[in-house]
Amino acid sequence: MSSPLRLGIAGLGTVGIGVVRNVRQKAQLLAARSGRSIEISAVSARTRDKDRGVSIASYDWEDDPVTLATRDDVDVFVELMGGSDGPAKAATEAAIAAGKHVVTANKAMLALHGHDLALASEAAGVALRFEAAVAGGIPVVKALTEGLAANEITRVMGVMNGTCNYILTRMQSSGLPYDDVFEEANQLGYLEADPSLDVGGIDAGHKLSLLASIAFGTQVDFGGVALEGIEKVTIDDIRQADDMGYRIKLLGVARMTARGLEQRMSPCLVPKKSPLGQLDGGTNMVVLEGDEAEQIVLRGPGAGMGPTASAVMADVIDIARGFRVSTFGRPATSLEAASPASTATAVPYYLRMALHDKPGALAKVATVLGDAGVSIDRMRQYRHKDATAPVLIVTHKTAPAALEDALAAMSRLEVLASAPVALRIESV
Amino acid sequence: MSSPLRLGIAGLGTVGIGVVRNVRQKAQLLAARSGRSIEISAVSARTRDKDRGVSIASYDWEDDPVTLATRDDVDVFVELMGGSDGPAKAATEAAIAAGKHVVTANKAMLALHGHDLALASEAAGVALRFEAAVAGGIPVVKALTEGLAANEITRVMGVMNGTCNYILTRMQSSGLPYDDVFEEANQLGYLEADPSLDVGGIDAGHKLSLLASIAFGTQVDFGGVALEGIEKVTIDDIRQADDMGYRIKLLGVARMTARGLEQRMSPCLVPKKSPLGQLDGGTNMVVLEGDEAEQIVLRGPGAGMGPTASAVMADVIDIARGFRVSTFGRPATSLEAASPASTATAVPYYLRMALHDKPGALAKVATVLGDAGVSIDRMRQYRHKDATAPVLIVTHKTAPAALEDALAAMSRLEVLASAPVALRIESV
Repeated sequence: MSSPLRLGIAGLGTVGIGVVRNVRQKAQLLAARSGRSIEISAVSARTRDKDRGVSIASYDWEDDPVTLATRDDVDVFVELMGGSDGPAKAATEAAIAAGKHVVTANKAMLALHGHDLALASEAAGVALRFEAAVAGGIPVVKALTEGLAANEITRVMGVMNGTCNYILTRMQSSGLPYDDVFEEANQLGYLEADPSLDVGGIDAGHKLSLLASIAFGTQVDFGGVALEGIEKVTIDDIRQADDMGYRIKLLGVARMTARGLEQRMSPCLVPKKSPLGQLDGGTNMVVLEGDEAEQIVLRGPGAGMGPTASAVMADVIDIARGFRVSTFGRPATSLEAASPASTATAVPYYLRMALHDKPGALAKVATVLGDAGVSIDRMRQYRHKDATAPVLIVTHKTAPAALEDALAAMSRLEVLASAPVALRIESV
Repeated sequence: MSSPLRLGIAGLGTVGIGVVRNVRQKAQLLAARSGRSIEISAVSARTRDKDRGVSIASYDWEDDPVTLATRDDVDVFVELMGGSDGPAKAATEAAIAAGKHVVTANKAMLALHGHDLALASEAAGVALRFEAAVAGGIPVVKALTEGLAANEITRVMGVMNGTCNYILTRMQSSGLPYDDVFEEANQLGYLEADPSLDVGGIDAGHKLSLLASIAFGTQVDFGGVALEGIEKVTIDDIRQADDMGYRIKLLGVARMTARGLEQRMSPCLVPKKSPLGQLDGGTNMVVLEGDEAEQIVLRGPGAGMGPTASAVMADVIDIARGFRVSTFGRPATSLEAASPASTATAVPYYLRMALHDKPGALAKVATVLGDAGVSIDRMRQYRHKDATAPVLIVTHKTAPAALEDALAAMSRLEVLASAPVALRIESV
């Protein structure tokens, strides 16, 4: 058996402690599967003295993660501090410069600096791995980078923020409005300190940008992700989408099109009988589509101590086993700059509006849609509430420009009680 | 870029041709992702001259797969002939002895000889990989061996024979009896030449035994798989399970218990709203449960040219990238002989019976069950058909011995019109 693989772990929050526990409790299993023992040399965190439920007394302590990352007795720097810049980035760069492998769960850092870090790690001949950064315990980075390596990837989709999926499915099941369920999630501690990371789609957008880079051979381009959060999803949308056979999910979709790379993170409708439609609560799901493998669906816990530690340790074990694969599946020097698609792929749309109770109102809406080239698949008018009538329309596939034209023309009609809501329907 | 990786492909059926097409059509993508080009040196099949829809004229031809496997210009022997023994095994052994890596889709060969072949390949220092042997295009061998390597695996489950799942879901949707749907599947060419490989659970049992070896660190033990096919599943079972909220699936389940390794391939009931319950048609699904990652579900096509070629090529690309992992995730010399569990884990059971229309019949059945220690969770008696009344019982968790006692005692009652059917209910 080879020499031990020695870790330096920075960040002892839930995930860091999960990794420490895994290394301590599974020493034999890890050695059997890795071919060498895995040890912790030193750790670092904001506070040294704190009851973490597991003893760290046998590991050296470093106040400075940069010092930790560059210690002689560290082979792999495990970065679990978080934050796109600051100490996490400084320590990661220092580790790479010192010839250490890096395993990180830091989606924000990679979404913003992934390409530069990948270039640096490959120039230094070290691994930079991030299975835990995307969809928690689901081995999706591995599935895409290795399992589907012989495929032209045609689409990557995913529900990758458990908090948003919790909020949307809780609205569905309870009938409560967004604000109430948001507050409930807040009380339960499900939200980030800055909730817009979750409900604004930023966290999930980070993850999508990482998968898109692997899928399409482009440099990570988080700036190219069209972001729309779930804040505007109303309980009426959820009910009426249900009535039409759909669920609303915060769905990430990445496609390579003739118009460039399309990356969208937005509330979308998906058929309620599809695997994505049936995904309740905090569970994550990623759908990988390739020209050979067709459609591969992966489902599992997107967060939590055990699942995230499982993903971090899978990367550590790969390194122990001697696997070396480029961070994004091909040499970083060969990744092309992403050219964001100027327009979105045509999909069917769900349109919700409230019409004033006037004769011919619906006819006017239908005329405007037709004039803009938007073709109606299904339409429902519900019984009047107050003086307005809710109307739902599902369109056939519609180019975004045509939809914009139609929405603009509708806004000039005097029959609409408020601006119409438009959501994309993603086929799955 | 390193020197090309050169393949010798034996077997040019659907999968073999899929691999040839992949290598020809995706040369650039494969080189970008592998870091070296992938080439075919030579091929072998039963018939040389045959229109295969893709030209093999540029590759050397070998009549004998053993000669192919040992050619100087072959780095990886790709075995796609099938058959547990005979030429496939001879050529695989010859390849290993000649220091060639082997990639195979041959579940039967590995289920029966996997341990010996793994020992030989590791002694020779070559890779022996088999992603395509289990669940087609789903990268499940990789997910289990690598993605969940830091977990104690607690259970592996799967629907891994698309033909059986097609038959069962077609019975469900059409209301047709087993024999009719079996004949339909036969007409459609879905069945193996020996249909018992499919409907008898043998093919899926081969796959289960391979996953169990990885999951539990035991030598492959196909002989230890308790096999039960779908031949006895009636349309009444399917209808009445549905009525109780279940679907019937040919489900493989492997668990390590205090009583030893439990491997079962049998028709089971699963909740119809679970991912397994919702799996229709020929799609495969594997559920991996670990103490850290919790539950990971993978879903995708279990067969077909593209998906299977995708899995074969993933193994080839791993080899090109220089990955080396033991065939079953740890050195074959360290795998323990499997000690099959003497009895099955207690689960709830579904019992279906027909009672003669006599006063007190149901009471007698209930008494017999109670006397054997079998506790009833739910019971339904349906309206009489002819002179008998169908009765369904869902039990609480029941040890198999208690169930056997109850079934034996019931068979001595004069109120039963026929032997009762008992199926396991697997929690998911």
